[in-house]
Amino acid sequence: MATYAERLHSAIARKRTPALVGLDPRETSLPSEIRAAADRHGLDANARRAWAYEHFCCRVIDVVAPLVPAVKPQVAFFEDCGPAGFQALAAVIRHARNAGLFVIADAKRGDIGSTAEAYASAWLAGEDPEAAPFAADALTVNPYLGPDTLQPFVQTAAARGAGLYVLVRTSNPESGVFQELLCEGRQVYQHIAAEVERLTESSGRDGRYGSVGAVVGATYPEELAQLRALLPRSPLLVPGYGAQGGSGSDVAAAFDAEGLGALVNSSRGILFAEQRDEYRELGAANGWEAAVEAATRDFIEDLRRHTPAGRLG
Amino acid sequence: MATYAERLHSAIARKRTPALVGLDPRETSLPSEIRAAADRHGLDANARRAWAYEHFCCRVIDVVAPLVPAVKPQVAFFEDCGPAGFQALAAVIRHARNAGLFVIADAKRGDIGSTAEAYASAWLAGEDPEAAPFAADALTVNPYLGPDTLQPFVQTAAARGAGLYVLVRTSNPESGVFQELLCEGRQVYQHIAAEVERLTESSGRDGRYGSVGAVVGATYPEELAQLRALLPRSPLLVPGYGAQGGSGSDVAAAFDAEGLGALVNSSRGILFAEQRDEYRELGAANGWEAAVEAATRDFIEDLRRHTPAGRLG
Repeated sequence: MATYAERLHSAIARKRTPALVGLDPRETSLPSEIRAAADRHGLDANARRAWAYEHFCCRVIDVVAPLVPAVKPQVAFFEDCGPAGFQALAAVIRHARNAGLFVIADAKRGDIGSTAEAYASAWLAGEDPEAAPFAADALTVNPYLGPDTLQPFVQTAAARGAGLYVLVRTSNPESGVFQELLCEGRQVYQHIAAEVERLTESSGRDGRYGSVGAVVGATYPEELAQLRALLPRSPLLVPGYGAQGGSGSDVAAAFDAEGLGALVNSSRGILFAEQRDEYRELGAANGWEAAVEAATRDFIEDLRRHTPAGRLG
Repeated sequence: MATYAERLHSAIARKRTPALVGLDPRETSLPSEIRAAADRHGLDANARRAWAYEHFCCRVIDVVAPLVPAVKPQVAFFEDCGPAGFQALAAVIRHARNAGLFVIADAKRGDIGSTAEAYASAWLAGEDPEAAPFAADALTVNPYLGPDTLQPFVQTAAARGAGLYVLVRTSNPESGVFQELLCEGRQVYQHIAAEVERLTESSGRDGRYGSVGAVVGATYPEELAQLRALLPRSPLLVPGYGAQGGSGSDVAAAFDAEGLGALVNSSRGILFAEQRDEYRELGAANGWEAAVEAATRDFIEDLRRHTPAGRLG
């Protein structure tokens, strides 16, 4: 069986870009066409929203699948639609896989012992889409409860060729309050990074990289370089591109010299491109999907020009 | 509108006990009767498991509803059944509310900004069961990302008369690796406790207590006393009773002098009581529900004898 890093890096090499499209379907930002179609379904409010999210995300997938290696559904928005939202999410994940995309479920789960096993088993399908009800290739997880609570995720991931992204460093306004506390000469997030490095050492590896990655926010480029050094074997997931403020040159330090080792995520900047000044005219003339496509191409080009990802070909 | 603490404390006063029954429906531990009935349904594996979890939990609820104020469904087990599991969970929550029980959803969610808002809106119904698709009275949340990521939960909770339990201290084997790191004279979990105290100060209050509570594991009684002192206004949720090793005298320090301010959780020790030596004979003679009832009554009696909860009447 191929390891997560092998599978991920061959997906990146095929598309020649580490661009990751986040699927965050906020109701009020959806294209008016999708909202009108959902309204005509006359379902209850939660089912209507779930329908809109599924159809919007599947159409985004159809646009971006030829261009990028992976998508990242944000589970919270589907969860807020109740059971119908999870049916929609499962359908979106299936659609993405059938389109040849890697799926990273952004669920930020975490719990102890057999409860963590249940979460791992729910989300980590890896190579076999039948192996989990929500058939993701990788999952984001929260480390606060302790390293033993990550082990069930690591084991399930290794068994299925799936991957993990442990929350190490985030870029929200008060992310530093706990993450930057200084303990025994290192900040809390650096202690967590050291644990992630230990876990990935013991996980299945493709040459340099293991299957235990890290989420590292892109607020300070120098911090990204430091985390790349602390986590030499971890695939990184870098949110914060575009709508959250970062740009290509800000995330360059996340990559190795070959342009591998990281995925950079953009969500709102792609999904709702028709609402951005740069793409408004195009969207009005050719539809919102044309704006999504143009924004995705520009995202890819920015990463190609300003990061080592340009060496992917 | 009543605050969470008012609603919680009147529920506790009505039943005269702070006993909380955890709904952790592990498949291999379910009564053989339930497993056989599920098999006869001939659904696919996930739907069959979801059916079994729903029916088992609803029957447990029927047994414990006259005895205890609250139940705590563990979301991971339902999630591992896919979309059918969430339908089952929504039905279990409705059944518990209709039986007059408080519902604490143990989901350990956490994310930033509008994503946290979506999780809050998915789970926190508070007084109005129609206010959220998963109509819980309270939710467990993970603080690692920072205080600003707890704010959307605090605001939604306050608006709906719902509550939160922030993960402060857990009792799994390696809980100390990050939680006990010593920073500026205090351990990480004490920094988080201080933040919870600030948040609950600003939340709706019933006299002494606010609506932002804390999860505090019951491994060391002296630590529980210290956390009770650090968190004078937070309702506490204390797991670890019974199957995880704790007993009534271990959790006494979680309560105030009137026997309020805490819920103590027991899951496996109640749900699967027919498999415990003390209740095996009773279960074999009168069925698994008789074992559940006897174990619940013994749990309540242990708390009554060995903690200030005895003063509830």
